[in-house]
Amino acid sequence: MALTDLERLERNENGIATAVAVLAQRFGDRLKTSMALREQHAHTTTYIPSQLPDAVVFATGEDDVRETVRVCAQYRVPVIPFGTGTSLEGGVNAPAGGISIDLTSMNRIVRVDAEDLDATVEAGVTREQLNSHLRDSGLFFPIDPGANASLGGMAATRASGTNAVRYGTMRENVIALRAVLPDGRVIRTAQRARKSAAGYDLTRLIVGSEGTLAIITELTLRLYGIPEAISAAICSFPDLESACNATILAMQSGLPMARIELMDASTVRAVNAYSRTDIPEQPLLLLEFHGSPAGVQEQTEAFGAIARDCGGSDFRWVTTTEERNRLWKARHDVYWAVRAAAPGKQAFATDVCVPISRLAECVAETERDIADSGLYGPIVGHVGDGNFHAAICCDPADADELGRAEAVVERLAMRALAMEGTCTGEHGIGQGKRRFLRLEHGPGVDVMAAIKKAIDPDNIMNPGKVLTA
Amino acid sequence: MALTDLERLERNENGIATAVAVLAQRFGDRLKTSMALREQHAHTTTYIPSQLPDAVVFATGEDDVRETVRVCAQYRVPVIPFGTGTSLEGGVNAPAGGISIDLTSMNRIVRVDAEDLDATVEAGVTREQLNSHLRDSGLFFPIDPGANASLGGMAATRASGTNAVRYGTMRENVIALRAVLPDGRVIRTAQRARKSAAGYDLTRLIVGSEGTLAIITELTLRLYGIPEAISAAICSFPDLESACNATILAMQSGLPMARIELMDASTVRAVNAYSRTDIPEQPLLLLEFHGSPAGVQEQTEAFGAIARDCGGSDFRWVTTTEERNRLWKARHDVYWAVRAAAPGKQAFATDVCVPISRLAECVAETERDIADSGLYGPIVGHVGDGNFHAAICCDPADADELGRAEAVVERLAMRALAMEGTCTGEHGIGQGKRRFLRLEHGPGVDVMAAIKKAIDPDNIMNPGKVLTA
Repeated sequence: MALTDLERLERNENGIATAVAVLAQRFGDRLKTSMALREQHAHTTTYIPSQLPDAVVFATGEDDVRETVRVCAQYRVPVIPFGTGTSLEGGVNAPAGGISIDLTSMNRIVRVDAEDLDATVEAGVTREQLNSHLRDSGLFFPIDPGANASLGGMAATRASGTNAVRYGTMRENVIALRAVLPDGRVIRTAQRARKSAAGYDLTRLIVGSEGTLAIITELTLRLYGIPEAISAAICSFPDLESACNATILAMQSGLPMARIELMDASTVRAVNAYSRTDIPEQPLLLLEFHGSPAGVQEQTEAFGAIARDCGGSDFRWVTTTEERNRLWKARHDVYWAVRAAAPGKQAFATDVCVPISRLAECVAETERDIADSGLYGPIVGHVGDGNFHAAICCDPADADELGRAEAVVERLAMRALAMEGTCTGEHGIGQGKRRFLRLEHGPGVDVMAAIKKAIDPDNIMNPGKVLTA
Repeated sequence: MALTDLERLERNENGIATAVAVLAQRFGDRLKTSMALREQHAHTTTYIPSQLPDAVVFATGEDDVRETVRVCAQYRVPVIPFGTGTSLEGGVNAPAGGISIDLTSMNRIVRVDAEDLDATVEAGVTREQLNSHLRDSGLFFPIDPGANASLGGMAATRASGTNAVRYGTMRENVIALRAVLPDGRVIRTAQRARKSAAGYDLTRLIVGSEGTLAIITELTLRLYGIPEAISAAICSFPDLESACNATILAMQSGLPMARIELMDASTVRAVNAYSRTDIPEQPLLLLEFHGSPAGVQEQTEAFGAIARDCGGSDFRWVTTTEERNRLWKARHDVYWAVRAAAPGKQAFATDVCVPISRLAECVAETERDIADSGLYGPIVGHVGDGNFHAAICCDPADADELGRAEAVVERLAMRALAMEGTCTGEHGIGQGKRRFLRLEHGPGVDVMAAIKKAIDPDNIMNPGKVLTA
């Protein structure tokens, strides 16, 4: 199957018609069936074609989610949770139709506890909204995927971003969840203690399950104190491999890097054009150090020595908060910068992740492979985690170009798996990466399918995602 | 049901007899049915009475585990994995009889990768064995429950210990597992990349499942560089509450404490007697700081200021490595020190964990409750996590004393749950804490049961543990 061919699953037409009618009566104006809204709720940011839901329910609280799921369960109709619609792998598509539950109005910050360094939020709160809310508290939430995604969606896809090397991913930073099960019951996956050995880890089971087991309605998240000192820098390298080698040495030496991000020259060119920055157009690392003033000083000196040994040069310090924010904003907008640099093209947003010892080799082979393919495919990465993106751009109407792009994407996933890595470090499986799941997990996929069947026997929760079934 | 009354589950006598005969043929001398070995494999370190398996298979590799599980599955006979038998909650008991699989000979260290800071070990490797093996590599594995437990057992119970405040628990430090399913198939739960968004988190599902879903045969673990500088200290406080308050302030100020351990005066007395130390017999914190020399200096000064504000005094620096090792060895032996201080008594080894803001209150209320009960119940804790142990000692033959002890244990669990905490921070549910599971997780327990049923429909994997069924 070509990457851009999505199967339509069988539609339960009668069930859908009944459920939409029942929900319309229940929700009135808060249920929408207009084509514009349906299209918006299957909007995908990548190459994956849209598959529209039949209706959208705008939930204002957990009871709305429960009620919608109950009705859908009764008539065996798919339910697709919708946060900000920024999935890169078709997470919000409705291949068998059904009801999209829009959670954007569930955007209350329920509590912030500065003593316990945690907060409880509704699933529709975005990461930027939370951090704005925290601004005067001296606290922050570090997980920052490219998009200003909803925290429910970030938990559902086990998202990470530029700070994960220091602070972990959503896997490490969700303390507890509330979620609606396919039968309409609500579970709370854990208490608020930092650790527990009480029973199966339902929190981590739902984190990363992409809406296929339950719909997250509320999250309790770890917060961190804003470091006393923050220092950012840009360091150029003669080639990607050297930049990767510096990263590897920094990680192996135990330097507590807060951010260590790779960009190749063509990414920098796209960023400079899109975000009006003047970053040197060479392979480079963007760095950030967090700690006490003395600690940050120590870290930067230690990293400087490593970088010089690896051929790094032209260290530029980013001194003001404003300049630093501008730099990271530009980094977060890389996807859009690359899209703007390749007008009329679609992008395969790959995100393999390998053990750090294999990073330089994996990046170098991928760089060569993209060059050989003749395609535009800039490379950028959260390299401290061994995670990098090659945005393989092509015109999907050009069969030859599409074929070459698909072949590069396929070889990249295989290369990462052969290096004991994963096909997706942070974007999730969605629809786009399902064919790699068994190659990565073997019979583990059968265990996942057994769990799915046990919790959602009628397969109403975001069907057609993650598992092939 | 009294805590010390364990139900016997129904025994499948014919199945057990057949399975033992088939396995005896298969394993010859490596299957044992002597009373001495059966007793040793149901040995419990706590108040929980032993329930013996019918036979013990000494596995030398994963194939032995597979073969044993296959035979047991065929005849519907329980399988109980056995590491070092140091469960505090009856983890190795056989309430319906069956086969104990002894994994102690599966003690090969498969690989250590200094570049990726990880290692792969068989399930029977103990934490001390791994750290001895790593001694010359500059690396260490930080998770350190009191016992020199097997790493497979530590993963199965989601263990932690004194370093968890800085390095996390087994939840954060297992990268991947190999495990044998009830049908004899083997899964590998993840590749070796540091993060992944590919499918359900089977690693975290099996970590903490206490052998009820699968038998862990191999683990890939995170390692850490031994810090450049390590500094330990003892600081006395006028009372437990003051020590807890100092802990809370240290955690809230973001100090990266490596260890912050509480002991009450009666624990210190027991430790001094058992381990021949001369620690001041007052409420105190044992501390350890990791980092660069300057970083450690900074941390100790910052902590010193906090401690003084909370009434801390009599700071004693533990300067030599030898003295430091002796101190932590004494800390690890607290359980045995307390047992030695209360000859003829059994101990309820409680281990609640609460949000840090509630720690002082929870400890203070517990201290008063124990005093009111007239029982010996010293308090010790990994207080940086909000986790503490009160070892409630009583003579199980003295009905009145037993009743008072059970009431204290019950109230302690309820107190922690009411404070948004957990009934077990690190010991697991086993048999001993099953009645608290639904109080803690509500309908989440039904989800756990559904997963158990889906993966182990005949309930052969460590039956009678974690879930009530």
